[in-house]
Amino acid sequence: MRVVKDALERKNEILDVAEELFVTKGYDKTSTNDILERVDIARGTLYYHFKSKEDILNAIIERINLSLIAKAKAIAKDTSISIPDRIVMTIAGLNVDTEIGHEIIDEVHKPQNALMHQKMQNDLVGKIVPILTGLVIEGNEQKIFNVKYPKETVEMLILYSCIVFDDDYDDIKENKDKRIEAFLHNMECLFGAEKGSLQKVMIKLFRR
Amino acid sequence: MRVVKDALERKNEILDVAEELFVTKGYDKTSTNDILERVDIARGTLYYHFKSKEDILNAIIERINLSLIAKAKAIAKDTSISIPDRIVMTIAGLNVDTEIGHEIIDEVHKPQNALMHQKMQNDLVGKIVPILTGLVIEGNEQKIFNVKYPKETVEMLILYSCIVFDDDYDDIKENKDKRIEAFLHNMECLFGAEKGSLQKVMIKLFRR
Repeated sequence: MRVVKDALERKNEILDVAEELFVTKGYDKTSTNDILERVDIARGTLYYHFKSKEDILNAIIERINLSLIAKAKAIAKDTSISIPDRIVMTIAGLNVDTEIGHEIIDEVHKPQNALMHQKMQNDLVGKIVPILTGLVIEGNEQKIFNVKYPKETVEMLILYSCIVFDDDYDDIKENKDKRIEAFLHNMECLFGAEKGSLQKVMIKLFRR
Repeated sequence: MRVVKDALERKNEILDVAEELFVTKGYDKTSTNDILERVDIARGTLYYHFKSKEDILNAIIERINLSLIAKAKAIAKDTSISIPDRIVMTIAGLNVDTEIGHEIIDEVHKPQNALMHQKMQNDLVGKIVPILTGLVIEGNEQKIFNVKYPKETVEMLILYSCIVFDDDYDDIKENKDKRIEAFLHNMECLFGAEKGSLQKVMIKLFRR
């Protein structure tokens, strides 16, 4: 299996360099030549892994999504934390708040990348919904929630949060604050959770 | 004002013909030449109104949105109908269920039209939210609802319904039926409405 591992390593190496260049030079100003120079591989090797610069960006997004999902899974199974805590932490964790994240997100928000943006969001939503649904069912069993349609309810909340808490959507801070307040209030209502129980977690998280 | 009116009439005439051709021949197979032949105008006149075939499609979508909004406004102000009835009718009315609608919607769902799709949806959501928010506030005043964040709650429901009840999203009928059931249940919960009150309206609507 040595060859397979090397190919994966090479692929990740290309992505690491591309990610760094996209952040420092910007996506538009980075050429595949710039990437080749830094990784020191033949053009053929690059094109063996990726069809184009856009394809590289896609792979970077996939990698970010995978790491967000891994983080979410780790939180979800940590039974030392209460279920409301785990739910709010998982949702709050969906914000890509790193330097790399910002440059990639800016790129994804460009009009010409609408399809990519949509794919990225659908991919993330599709993977996060089962994780949170599991937590809601656990909450039902513990009688701290009372949710008749766990999957559909989680889907509603996540789709909404992905759109509305996206940097692109209505960037007036006041509106965003009110939306977060309303979101938590509505989540408590939909989950049949104790009033203020999820809001409390959010306040605790942001005080850290 | 005669000239202005004529220009608008001409514009609508182009859109009528284009709409018909897009439905009968398909968008891809329709050329601007086909449109010109049928409207019998000079190429310059067409390009005075629209930059490209895509621009014509955009204008058709705008016209569909405008007519959906007009319908929604008419329902919303009809005080002879109960508020739960008006709300469910407004949301159900957002489905473009005409032959013209279907061809246009199919076109909009193509990957290359992701940006247009997004724009169309944002435009519609942006215009429907204030109408429904007004109805929810009326419901609060009549004490049949109890909604702390009317605007944000309506926004959540409409964004979700636009995505999930879109033809493109998970077209398994069983899933869709369960989503509608869950949507109405959750809407009642968020509105603090009597249990089954909105579900009843939906059943009534579909029996018509």
